[in-house]
Amino acid sequence: DAQYSRNVPFETSPQTIRLYYFYNHWTMRAATNFFIFVDLSLALFEEPALFPLPFLATSIAEVLCLTAFFGRLIHFAKVTPQTVFWKDTKNICIMVTIVLTLVDLIVYGSLEAINIHSVRWSRALRPVFLINFPESRQIRRAFRSIRNTLPDILYVFLLFMFNMLIFSLMALKLFGDRGLKTVEGSPYFTNILEIIFDLYVLVTTANSPDVMMPAYDFNRWYSLYFITYIIINTYIFMSVFLAVVYNNYRKHLKNEIRKLVYLKHYKMVEAFNLLKVKVGAEFVVKEAEWRRLTKVVVPDISSSHLELLLRISDEGQKGHVDKTNFLRLADLLNIQVITISVRRHPLEAWMPRVYKSSVSLFIQKVVQHRIFVWIYDAIILLNAIFIALDEKNPFISYAEWLFLSLYVIEILLKLYTYEPKAYFGRKQFWNWFDTLIIIAALVATVANATIQSARKYNSQQILDIVLVLRILRLLRVIISIQRFRVIVTTLINIGPTILTFGGLVLVVYYTFAIIGMEVFQGKVRFFDPNVTTPDALVCGNPALKDAAFARDRYCKNNFNDLAASFVVLIELTVVNQWHIIAEGFSLVTHPTAKLYFIFFHIVVVILIVNIFIAFILEAFFVAYSLDKSDIETAIERKIQELG
Amino acid sequence: DAQYSRNVPFETSPQTIRLYYFYNHWTMRAATNFFIFVDLSLALFEEPALFPLPFLATSIAEVLCLTAFFGRLIHFAKVTPQTVFWKDTKNICIMVTIVLTLVDLIVYGSLEAINIHSVRWSRALRPVFLINFPESRQIRRAFRSIRNTLPDILYVFLLFMFNMLIFSLMALKLFGDRGLKTVEGSPYFTNILEIIFDLYVLVTTANSPDVMMPAYDFNRWYSLYFITYIIINTYIFMSVFLAVVYNNYRKHLKNEIRKLVYLKHYKMVEAFNLLKVKVGAEFVVKEAEWRRLTKVVVPDISSSHLELLLRISDEGQKGHVDKTNFLRLADLLNIQVITISVRRHPLEAWMPRVYKSSVSLFIQKVVQHRIFVWIYDAIILLNAIFIALDEKNPFISYAEWLFLSLYVIEILLKLYTYEPKAYFGRKQFWNWFDTLIIIAALVATVANATIQSARKYNSQQILDIVLVLRILRLLRVIISIQRFRVIVTTLINIGPTILTFGGLVLVVYYTFAIIGMEVFQGKVRFFDPNVTTPDALVCGNPALKDAAFARDRYCKNNFNDLAASFVVLIELTVVNQWHIIAEGFSLVTHPTAKLYFIFFHIVVVILIVNIFIAFILEAFFVAYSLDKSDIETAIERKIQELG
Repeated sequence: DAQYSRNVPFETSPQTIRLYYFYNHWTMRAATNFFIFVDLSLALFEEPALFPLPFLATSIAEVLCLTAFFGRLIHFAKVTPQTVFWKDTKNICIMVTIVLTLVDLIVYGSLEAINIHSVRWSRALRPVFLINFPESRQIRRAFRSIRNTLPDILYVFLLFMFNMLIFSLMALKLFGDRGLKTVEGSPYFTNILEIIFDLYVLVTTANSPDVMMPAYDFNRWYSLYFITYIIINTYIFMSVFLAVVYNNYRKHLKNEIRKLVYLKHYKMVEAFNLLKVKVGAEFVVKEAEWRRLTKVVVPDISSSHLELLLRISDEGQKGHVDKTNFLRLADLLNIQVITISVRRHPLEAWMPRVYKSSVSLFIQKVVQHRIFVWIYDAIILLNAIFIALDEKNPFISYAEWLFLSLYVIEILLKLYTYEPKAYFGRKQFWNWFDTLIIIAALVATVANATIQSARKYNSQQILDIVLVLRILRLLRVIISIQRFRVIVTTLINIGPTILTFGGLVLVVYYTFAIIGMEVFQGKVRFFDPNVTTPDALVCGNPALKDAAFARDRYCKNNFNDLAASFVVLIELTVVNQWHIIAEGFSLVTHPTAKLYFIFFHIVVVILIVNIFIAFILEAFFVAYSLDKSDIETAIERKIQELG
Repeated sequence: DAQYSRNVPFETSPQTIRLYYFYNHWTMRAATNFFIFVDLSLALFEEPALFPLPFLATSIAEVLCLTAFFGRLIHFAKVTPQTVFWKDTKNICIMVTIVLTLVDLIVYGSLEAINIHSVRWSRALRPVFLINFPESRQIRRAFRSIRNTLPDILYVFLLFMFNMLIFSLMALKLFGDRGLKTVEGSPYFTNILEIIFDLYVLVTTANSPDVMMPAYDFNRWYSLYFITYIIINTYIFMSVFLAVVYNNYRKHLKNEIRKLVYLKHYKMVEAFNLLKVKVGAEFVVKEAEWRRLTKVVVPDISSSHLELLLRISDEGQKGHVDKTNFLRLADLLNIQVITISVRRHPLEAWMPRVYKSSVSLFIQKVVQHRIFVWIYDAIILLNAIFIALDEKNPFISYAEWLFLSLYVIEILLKLYTYEPKAYFGRKQFWNWFDTLIIIAALVATVANATIQSARKYNSQQILDIVLVLRILRLLRVIISIQRFRVIVTTLINIGPTILTFGGLVLVVYYTFAIIGMEVFQGKVRFFDPNVTTPDALVCGNPALKDAAFARDRYCKNNFNDLAASFVVLIELTVVNQWHIIAEGFSLVTHPTAKLYFIFFHIVVVILIVNIFIAFILEAFFVAYSLDKSDIETAIERKIQELG
């Protein structure tokens, strides 16, 4: 169990172990994930909905999910000791959320029955389930990391706010009485609250240099005020935020790893104590026992791999494993030993004569040659030129078929030369990428051609997909350049952890989206770009008259359904023009609505994006200074010893 | 000499040593710096000038500067051995630049004489002098750091460009034939070069979400294309750039420090070999000799400090210093030993009876009490409220006099209580800050009142200064909060190095500004905001009709003089709206002018700003994990030994 660094304390009676196995069985975990997914995606069907469903349907689905979560929790309670269960904030969180959701459902339902619309506020709590089930350890760790950063960030933030207030006061006094006008003709820097907002936006650089222009036009020396402000707040303070987040991230990472290692050690000691027998002066685990344990933990281990591990663990070949080596087992199992089998090609087994004939050998030699790779790189470049040319020309659309068949031939040739299982090995990202892209392009092109010849019309969706696939194929050139490959490999290796961030961002976005939909739904409507009625020009809300929001045609940036809300939140994360969006939504509701956007900026841009940057920095530093760990060297030594 | 880690190899004959001393004399260095300053500031007076001077005047000044530089170089050549002098690229750089500048001056002058206008291109080379004189070691180091980062950055940049091209091609194919229009009504994503520019701008986030809106309005699924692009290029690639720069910065820093330590050691060994005498089995330096050397190197060392150092160096009190300890001398001298003298207050010496009287002692006790600090914090807050209120009210302007006198009283009281020299110690940043602000405010307020009563009118400049000073006073609250003080102290400590970056940025800005002025001068003109003639609305250039540049009233963002150019470059560094400025200047000249802006972005934002961030990160990490060096602990041990 320690292998996966899970740390669920459980009792050791046979019945609970069976229950525990069942709890960790993949079907149960898949079911939990499924219900979490259903619960979260309910927001797509509830008002304001992308695909509206009646309240009854969504509420029944929600109750179903809640029951499933409750069942899962009870199952978990049976497995762990009572005291531990009640001490764990995770479980309490889940229970409280279930109760709150039920209360909200009942209140909302009964109010709805007598035709009073209220707010389904408990929907914002749904990500609690995603965070608090033991399955999402990674996301929880990221949240813990944020929580630990908060105190340090807070003081920097307060200092930053104080500094901003001082500058706001200065701006009010310097520019307030000048009677200056902004480009839109509104008074410039006269209201302290608006100044604070403008200066906060300036920190994010989103209104530079517009906010400076009126003062700069009036007197060029006033630019010094803005330059000082930007240097102090945008450059220095924002870097300090990154430094604080990064520093905490590193410190926290170290602590988490230390804790995990300790827990693993503790559990391995317990396992050792269960299995030990006394041989001579010391306690050891018999070889047969050890084999059985390893087989149970990793059912699909190859026998040669097992043999290798045993040789490493049983240093003196004494037929038993001592404590030190036993404790290393978990780490050993986590190292992937690539079994380089000199397996024969299946075709060689089927028809050895043909495969070993001189023509076949020649083909294999050609495929393995460097020039083969170069020729295909040239073909890809040629293909790029053809893509860039106009595709209306029938000759070019025929060329597409040619290129496609050339790529298919390449893959077939490679499969002919290399052993298929090795070719599609786990680490062979680019081979997978290649094959999938080509197959998808083949399928889509054929489908498109069929539809075209049958109905004489091009399906737009399929054409788009074909196009994207066709261009993605060009990415293949990257692998031919060694330096590029290193960078891309590092990026691919950190892919899984980037997905953790995806989960984290999803949780935060979901909560903000639900709140945003409750507050801003229906306030801004999108009209087809060709409609130019006065109503369409102000996004269906007269309050937006003369606002930059309507002028820039941001009507589709609204909170009218979950998907649209997510797009808006992504735009806010990118930061640029966020003040226009904030301004727009505060015009259609209330000036305090800006607080929602400022808060979003603090949480997502100052905290999460900085953690993301810290993570990428750390990943690259590790990649630059890759060191082999102790145990890996131990394995290597043993492999060398064994020849 | 090793103390200041200078590493100029020089001959050891008495004459050269005298020359070398003279070379390093502060007047000579000040003169060099003065001529560099004059040379750089010539750009203020040359066409396009802030303060125009005839070409004859500026060219005579330039020749003068060049002569001074040449003289300085010859002086340096006399000091160093010939071979070393000619191997040093710095010297060759300076000579080449002098020759080039002279050639340019002559060519330009003679062409001017026959009324042909040409380009003073050599002006862009002027920062070479700033970089290459031995005085600006720090800036040179920063440049070296950039140069070393280039190869690594290059590959990431190529990959990034390749990725951008792939996405551009995709955009052309996906959106080019849709007949979509941008908000301004121009065709959307139809020209591949424009697409590449737009997507480059999107990486800097400056045109998000505008660039996405037409496609998003057409079909919401197209947002996925832009989101993918932003995640890959803005978030991942930009972080990778930071990672590469940061990694190189750290590596490079380590190397530089190692090299410096090695050079210092080498020089100290040479000095030891000159001074050594044999005592017993080992070579040592006599105590008298050692004293004399230290006195020569640091003339104003206090005798107690010297004694302390000697005791540390001469461990056995044997009257001489051995090699190991001698080599430590340079490091020892660099450590500031704060001589905490329990000096008496001067007033106590003058009139001991009054100063020691019970009233006086009571006052001192009050001033030292915490409540005194609290009262003044409260006064500052009250002052902030008064400032925020309208100052038209005469009562409030009287209150200002009250506050000012309260602050003056505070400083006087503190000077009465604490010893003045200790109060204005080197490390007492806040005391200095306080006193200077108050004195300046006092002077400015009195000056203003005098002018007002004499001429019945307020001088706007003085009023502005008074206002800024008045508000800066509020910053004092920070020191009362421990946590804030830590952050601010770290920021103040890294201040000097930030100035190095200032130098680096100045060099890059200067070169870009000169090029910008030659290319864009006079193309865009600024009119008073109240003038609304058609000419003023397009910044005096019909090519800007309907351009966002004119619509946003960016007319004052031009390259018509050095100061204006610098402001534009700062705006470009802040990034937001840089594409509008680039678009504007390419409209009035040629589309290729965008390359100037893209190149500026790569150099300043991707390289220099990232180095700046790396530097701040490192400074904060060091502050977080401050460790005492070996030698500092050695001193402390000795101090403890001595009691």
